[in-house]
Amino acid sequence: MKKKIAILATNGFEEIELTSPKEALEKEGWLTEIVSPETDSIKSWASTDWGKSYKVDKTLENANPSDYDALMLPGGVINPDNLRTNEKALAFVKAFFEVGKPVAAICHGPQTLISAGVVEGRKMTSYPSIKTDLMNAGVEWQDKEVVVDKGLVTSRNPDDLPAFNKKMIEEIKEGKHEHSF
Amino acid sequence: MKKKIAILATNGFEEIELTSPKEALEKEGWLTEIVSPETDSIKSWASTDWGKSYKVDKTLENANPSDYDALMLPGGVINPDNLRTNEKALAFVKAFFEVGKPVAAICHGPQTLISAGVVEGRKMTSYPSIKTDLMNAGVEWQDKEVVVDKGLVTSRNPDDLPAFNKKMIEEIKEGKHEHSF
Repeated sequence: MKKKIAILATNGFEEIELTSPKEALEKEGWLTEIVSPETDSIKSWASTDWGKSYKVDKTLENANPSDYDALMLPGGVINPDNLRTNEKALAFVKAFFEVGKPVAAICHGPQTLISAGVVEGRKMTSYPSIKTDLMNAGVEWQDKEVVVDKGLVTSRNPDDLPAFNKKMIEEIKEGKHEHSF
Repeated sequence: MKKKIAILATNGFEEIELTSPKEALEKEGWLTEIVSPETDSIKSWASTDWGKSYKVDKTLENANPSDYDALMLPGGVINPDNLRTNEKALAFVKAFFEVGKPVAAICHGPQTLISAGVVEGRKMTSYPSIKTDLMNAGVEWQDKEVVVDKGLVTSRNPDDLPAFNKKMIEEIKEGKHEHSF
């Protein structure tokens, strides 16, 4: 069956950190959906300023985690800072961890995972600014282009995208992992 | 003697969170200096987009913490995310805590204090998105317009500025507090 991957994001996501994984996933013949608390479209952040807008495929309100095989969280400084205060977004994220579905998060994306309370004891990487926050949340933080830990795939920044996309796809092919939460 | 207050910031600081405390401090007849890793000017963030630029008074490279009576850290999502990865900025911040000089931080400003390793056991508030990060760093987080703890003054967002400015000025008038680090 065709895999279906949720991309959870809101305004201020780093453009390339959404478009590059999305393209890689679709190259596998899989479906992706941009899920957001916003209803129509979300504005990207393109390195140093606001970028293009992207259509929201499914509002968070109407999205059901059980419809998806995996979750991808792009970074950007503004995007996860907003998502992590949204209770519906946190519940959506938690649902993937609860059943061991693969989750991939890059750059500042892991901030949302801290607030969802799903990172304790995991091996992860991230954008360096949030390293201390992840370690304080119980993460074994590693300075590597990609870290894989039982279906959880994390990377540091856009330069890591080739390694991130490759490992994300591997983990999604493997499917559900041991209870990872 | 005239008090002198360092305002540590870089690109992406929330404009009103710098200009409002700066004006309040100067109304007391005190001097303020914008200290930054940037050399010429820094660009503000005005609520939803880049705002005006402000002149840097002293580069971080040339700033000596012992020249100042207190430190103020504005928020903004982008500004502390950058400062907290700068070792010179963290050393500058630590120097104020080591000798018990008043420090005021608003919104996302406390992120820099987490990375400087100076928040454990303190009573604080912040923008709600970083509440979990502060609690994981050992903070007793409170949802109040301003929290004062032995010379450390924190607030949540621009709406809290009147209370923030008032308490910041009170603490600076009191001068050095008991060793607060």
